[in-house]
Amino acid sequence: MYRNKTCGELRLKDVGTQVVLAGWVQRIRKMGGMTFIDLRDRYGITQLVFNEEANASLCQEANKLGREYVIQVTGEVNERYNKNANLPTGDVEIIVSELRLLNASQTPPFTIENNTDGGDDLRMKYRYLDLRRECVRANLELRHKFCMEVRRFLDSKGFLEIETPVLVGSTPEGARDFVVPSRMNPGQFYALPQSPQTLKQLLMVAGMDRYFQIVKCFRDEDLRADRQPEFTQIDCEMSFVEQNDILCLFEEMAKHLFKTVRGYDLGEAPFLRLPWSEAMRRFGSDKPDMRFGMEFVELMDVLKGTGSFAVFNEAEYIGGICAKGCAHYSRKQLDELTNFVKTPQIGAKGLVYARVGEGGEVKSSVDKFYTQDVLEKMRDQMQAEAGDLILIISGPDAMKARKQLCELRLLMGERLGLRDKNKFALLWVVDFPMFEWSDEEQRLMAMHHPFTAPKPEDVPLLDTDPAKVCANAYDMVCNGVEVGGGSIRIHDSVLQSKIFKVLGFTEERAQKQFGFLMNAFKYGAPPHGGLAYGLDRWVSLFAGLDSIRDCIAFPKNNSGRDVMLDAPSTLEPGQLEELCLKTVLPGK
Amino acid sequence: MYRNKTCGELRLKDVGTQVVLAGWVQRIRKMGGMTFIDLRDRYGITQLVFNEEANASLCQEANKLGREYVIQVTGEVNERYNKNANLPTGDVEIIVSELRLLNASQTPPFTIENNTDGGDDLRMKYRYLDLRRECVRANLELRHKFCMEVRRFLDSKGFLEIETPVLVGSTPEGARDFVVPSRMNPGQFYALPQSPQTLKQLLMVAGMDRYFQIVKCFRDEDLRADRQPEFTQIDCEMSFVEQNDILCLFEEMAKHLFKTVRGYDLGEAPFLRLPWSEAMRRFGSDKPDMRFGMEFVELMDVLKGTGSFAVFNEAEYIGGICAKGCAHYSRKQLDELTNFVKTPQIGAKGLVYARVGEGGEVKSSVDKFYTQDVLEKMRDQMQAEAGDLILIISGPDAMKARKQLCELRLLMGERLGLRDKNKFALLWVVDFPMFEWSDEEQRLMAMHHPFTAPKPEDVPLLDTDPAKVCANAYDMVCNGVEVGGGSIRIHDSVLQSKIFKVLGFTEERAQKQFGFLMNAFKYGAPPHGGLAYGLDRWVSLFAGLDSIRDCIAFPKNNSGRDVMLDAPSTLEPGQLEELCLKTVLPGK
Repeated sequence: MYRNKTCGELRLKDVGTQVVLAGWVQRIRKMGGMTFIDLRDRYGITQLVFNEEANASLCQEANKLGREYVIQVTGEVNERYNKNANLPTGDVEIIVSELRLLNASQTPPFTIENNTDGGDDLRMKYRYLDLRRECVRANLELRHKFCMEVRRFLDSKGFLEIETPVLVGSTPEGARDFVVPSRMNPGQFYALPQSPQTLKQLLMVAGMDRYFQIVKCFRDEDLRADRQPEFTQIDCEMSFVEQNDILCLFEEMAKHLFKTVRGYDLGEAPFLRLPWSEAMRRFGSDKPDMRFGMEFVELMDVLKGTGSFAVFNEAEYIGGICAKGCAHYSRKQLDELTNFVKTPQIGAKGLVYARVGEGGEVKSSVDKFYTQDVLEKMRDQMQAEAGDLILIISGPDAMKARKQLCELRLLMGERLGLRDKNKFALLWVVDFPMFEWSDEEQRLMAMHHPFTAPKPEDVPLLDTDPAKVCANAYDMVCNGVEVGGGSIRIHDSVLQSKIFKVLGFTEERAQKQFGFLMNAFKYGAPPHGGLAYGLDRWVSLFAGLDSIRDCIAFPKNNSGRDVMLDAPSTLEPGQLEELCLKTVLPGK
Repeated sequence: MYRNKTCGELRLKDVGTQVVLAGWVQRIRKMGGMTFIDLRDRYGITQLVFNEEANASLCQEANKLGREYVIQVTGEVNERYNKNANLPTGDVEIIVSELRLLNASQTPPFTIENNTDGGDDLRMKYRYLDLRRECVRANLELRHKFCMEVRRFLDSKGFLEIETPVLVGSTPEGARDFVVPSRMNPGQFYALPQSPQTLKQLLMVAGMDRYFQIVKCFRDEDLRADRQPEFTQIDCEMSFVEQNDILCLFEEMAKHLFKTVRGYDLGEAPFLRLPWSEAMRRFGSDKPDMRFGMEFVELMDVLKGTGSFAVFNEAEYIGGICAKGCAHYSRKQLDELTNFVKTPQIGAKGLVYARVGEGGEVKSSVDKFYTQDVLEKMRDQMQAEAGDLILIISGPDAMKARKQLCELRLLMGERLGLRDKNKFALLWVVDFPMFEWSDEEQRLMAMHHPFTAPKPEDVPLLDTDPAKVCANAYDMVCNGVEVGGGSIRIHDSVLQSKIFKVLGFTEERAQKQFGFLMNAFKYGAPPHGGLAYGLDRWVSLFAGLDSIRDCIAFPKNNSGRDVMLDAPSTLEPGQLEELCLKTVLPGK
């Protein structure tokens, strides 16, 4: 070893001992005849001292070092005169007696500090330097700890981690597959799994009973917002269970993770289980942020047809939220909110507001259409009090209007400081619809995936009104983020065929794509179900990060590029030839 | 839950309790008015009893069940009259009061027993049924336990598991890469990593200090023998270490794994560290099986030029092994051995043998060329005794002859029962050559990989005689199998450039392929090193398996096909078009 101590472990009790440290030069300061160096490694920072008077040549050597040089030092632990309360090692320093340069460094392109001067692109290109920053490294340490605890917990519950293959078959349903040409089978391709869904179901058919895997998944999507072409799932499946068994076990896991990894107590009470339709009604979202209230109040009975405001009179939905104490909002602030809901991403036509005055009187943007009496009824329905601001959205499509109001609720929650990153509110959203209509494809699509079991009592509806069928599906939601989701699966090949039919699969295509699974179901498939968590997202939540990128060692950018490795890139001509492939670039 | 007990946990103490079990029908036997069913789940087998007299209709239902039907039963635990000592649950049975059919099964295409009648191909196609067999399932359980212990151990030593990307850049050095066309970057490709070698080195540059990952790797090789296109590595890297630190730590890990997972005590003594040249000299192998001796004895001084046998007189190597007590081998047996070494895979020209008689006299196949005096000198050099058989191989190329003799040694070890699967002999092979000459490529190739550090004292040889340079590289060998290997890495960009030059890289190509790494080395790379284990191989050794396939849930066959999923396969035309690709099949 190049060291016998790390830069994070020395304390007052070590004073007087000889130590050897190795690490990076974080900072050099010269003060009079003294040179101070902050030496950094993964474990912390320790101050080194060189005294020109005591050892001039050694001090001279130290003065030649630069930022990020790698050095090894031998010296004696000394109590610091000026202690640094911000550092765990801040009580001591090393009086260096030997210095060995292990590697020099060019000046890094940005400062290796939590508050760095490096832009996003630069930090991605030099990700190996970005990772040296304590705040980035801490995310990877958290991720490691998180995964260790997931494994410890699931192992203790009898789950086996079983690796499923990465080179599988293409199943072009849902998102696009990444494909891999096979040299040994010319003209044929593997696909990278979007999730091990069918494979874990086969493991249940195989009698493995309780399976999990922390596993890479792949989706060739256009990368909006916070997506990565490769991401990591905590994938779980159990046999001989009903929905409640799964919810209880994974609730326990969530509590365990919060306690051991995040030091946060979620309490003893079971998580709220909110039916999807209720979540949509009360929050306009299938992943409501429950850190705060501000629930939707439906105002159809109060405002539709009770005045001359045509917009409301024609609406299929009128709903409001009450922003406590915001009656003082200026015209400018209200215009901002209106512009927000009118952005194309949100798509509302407008926003109606109403201030509740000190005496309870209501001043609204639609004053001229309603009597004060109606407006006060509205105020009462909203349970708004003096000083509150009521924000109302309406529209011809109830679902769309609710989603618009949801965005407004989240924004107001943010503004009112109700979305504290150090507070966590978890719940289950249950009873999802089986299908949702796709305008693009002009057919019903699986809301979760085609292997989700319908609620037994809804099975007859498959023939008559499939859009009404509810599924035994559930999502775990934390702070407005879907951290995981799953379902009880179909374990019957006849029912599975029927679902494929509802989804518009021809029998031939169903057989070609999922024949292996339907065939397996003929040999004694047990009842089973499971769920999958998005690891990146969950770790980001724990770390209080805005982007999943920051908890991934080497993430890709929005064009799916790794700018550090410069991947993807063109191949050498021989490689394509061996694969029996030719690129046909557009316009060539 | 469909059960409150598993099929593996009931014992005499449970007699009299009501239980609910669920599982698969393993076997049905009718005896008089009784029907006995062996109910199986992952945890074991429990006998169910149906009594026609007590409940005729229930018994009738039971009689309608078939093999692999999935059922749920309620009943009372009863002490068995005929106990089965072979089953942990063999003292009890369930007197069934309720039976619920959960799923029927077609007759499986082979019997779900350890001794099955299913051939390899059939079992691969129905792998989900094959996995139900206890002997296959046990391998996956072992694999899970193995990985849990690896993680526990490395976590306790301060290692962080860090995920590296699966979509990386192609580096066509060594084996072929699998590639992945990028839709978002037309004409460009990702590659799947052959190992995370360069990425883990970047993590060391990033100051992560101790890294590991249990990770899928990919090699598009023609699949000889026991290879899989995707396989799993335990990948490790450490900073600020010397070779000895790594060997000590991973020796400790090996001992831990053997003790906790295999229940095998490797003892306190450190592993043997055998220089590569000595391993080749004494065993003709860089992964010698040390469960037995039968070491090579060089016979050049005794047999070259001391008689008229031209083959020996022209040989560059003559070496023998002594098979204790095999002097009685018949002519036929000896011919068999000769034919064995003459097979094309081994390639020896012939085999010379010598029997040591009761009086110490030597009877050899080359009697007529040597005096008895010479032959007895040879016998003494071999330390052969009465009743022993000496087997000698010679050739014009010492390395080749040694490898041939190695194969013979392993065969004789097998025949003499010296290669017990329940005995384990571990060692380190160290001091590997940096390079080996490739006849095919007509250049020096990296014996480990191009990032391996030469021994510091050998660095000057890089300019004068690179073939003589030894590396700070090491392999962990168990029972003649290389379970892992690694090296101290180069952390200096100048030395790294020099090695690329010796390997015949132009500066431009080195920059294109590995520029990101050499660039990273300019910003304070710490001294570092590590190793990687082949997980599949190690688990196979623990399980006593002949093939790594048996410890992989869904392996591929020798053509790289998953016959269960029928992957790879052709794509839908639109998929290729989106990727700007065309297949060009040979002859079309």
